[in-house]
Amino acid sequence: MRIIETKRAPNPRRVAIFLAEKGIDVPREERDLMSGDLRQDDFSALNPWQRVPVLVLDDGTAISESVAICRYFEEIHPEPPLFGTGAIGKAEVEMWNRRVELGLFNAVASVFRHLHPKMAHLEVPQVTPWGEANKEKVESELTRLDRRLAESDFVAGASFSIADITALVAIDFMKPAKLAAPEGHAHIMRWYQEVSARPSASA
Amino acid sequence: MRIIETKRAPNPRRVAIFLAEKGIDVPREERDLMSGDLRQDDFSALNPWQRVPVLVLDDGTAISESVAICRYFEEIHPEPPLFGTGAIGKAEVEMWNRRVELGLFNAVASVFRHLHPKMAHLEVPQVTPWGEANKEKVESELTRLDRRLAESDFVAGASFSIADITALVAIDFMKPAKLAAPEGHAHIMRWYQEVSARPSASA
Repeated sequence: MRIIETKRAPNPRRVAIFLAEKGIDVPREERDLMSGDLRQDDFSALNPWQRVPVLVLDDGTAISESVAICRYFEEIHPEPPLFGTGAIGKAEVEMWNRRVELGLFNAVASVFRHLHPKMAHLEVPQVTPWGEANKEKVESELTRLDRRLAESDFVAGASFSIADITALVAIDFMKPAKLAAPEGHAHIMRWYQEVSARPSASA
Repeated sequence: MRIIETKRAPNPRRVAIFLAEKGIDVPREERDLMSGDLRQDDFSALNPWQRVPVLVLDDGTAISESVAICRYFEEIHPEPPLFGTGAIGKAEVEMWNRRVELGLFNAVASVFRHLHPKMAHLEVPQVTPWGEANKEKVESELTRLDRRLAESDFVAGASFSIADITALVAIDFMKPAKLAAPEGHAHIMRWYQEVSARPSASA
């Protein structure tokens, strides 16, 4: 098996951290999303949505979408559990991962995609007022996340989970999106220092 | 347990169809998202993101995000499986559900939220050029979905799954979003007629 990725892009990083937490090593193959390389026919055949990462299994099956790739590894390598345990625990991790992804992560990504000059040839059309509206959304999502982390060690509860990975990658993605670090949010900063210090954060 | 929902809103409908496919009956409580009722303190305490549906368990645990609610019921009532079976099958359902949700479903919702006059008091700010850009995205997502359904009985493969529910709800949501039905896409229409004829579609 192998993973096709663009190093340093946020979604491939989610999978890289997930695998590092599990202690799984998978060969990586680099393709540069910024150059339009994902629009080549051979890559589109693997993922018609033309995005990285893609996990290619030995039988040729191609799995894209980072959460789907992580789900595959959770199934074949359950320890440590990163999608929660028990019916309620699994639902809570899914809920928190979605809240962070559909909220903060997507808002930061929208600022990057719709305002950064480097994205003009990939995000067509760039919609400047949409990028601006998402700057406000980033703030409201950070406020909600800070309230959560005031009462919980990790995003989804007492244990580190995929929701922490999504939140960590979202916050680190604020820098290329030219958004100021969330230093005014004390609970986020407490949590951020902890999760950033895990060896997986540099995977 | 009970589910708090707004009848006819797309995300509560995803859960309603899912439960009908499982044969599970859960009491429903109506709150009208259009009136701003979800911004009341009692509801915000259940879901700080102020969205329906929310599943409230007997111990008071509140699960929001429709896919997380569905995941809970998949765990406690596995048959028939709607999130796939086996590591590859589960990853493929997750991949397809995400492709449809982050693609078609979100694009249709963005058209509705950013262009419909009825949404002006809820979607602040409405970004008209973003709504317009999503009309084009709906078309490209339909084209990809049509290609998939040319080669597959259901969205995620040979079996009906949560990905079909997400796609069905997205397509039915095109009407309130004032988008024309996808009649030019023959494979989507073949599939649409089949899934619409299931008893769960009217749940």
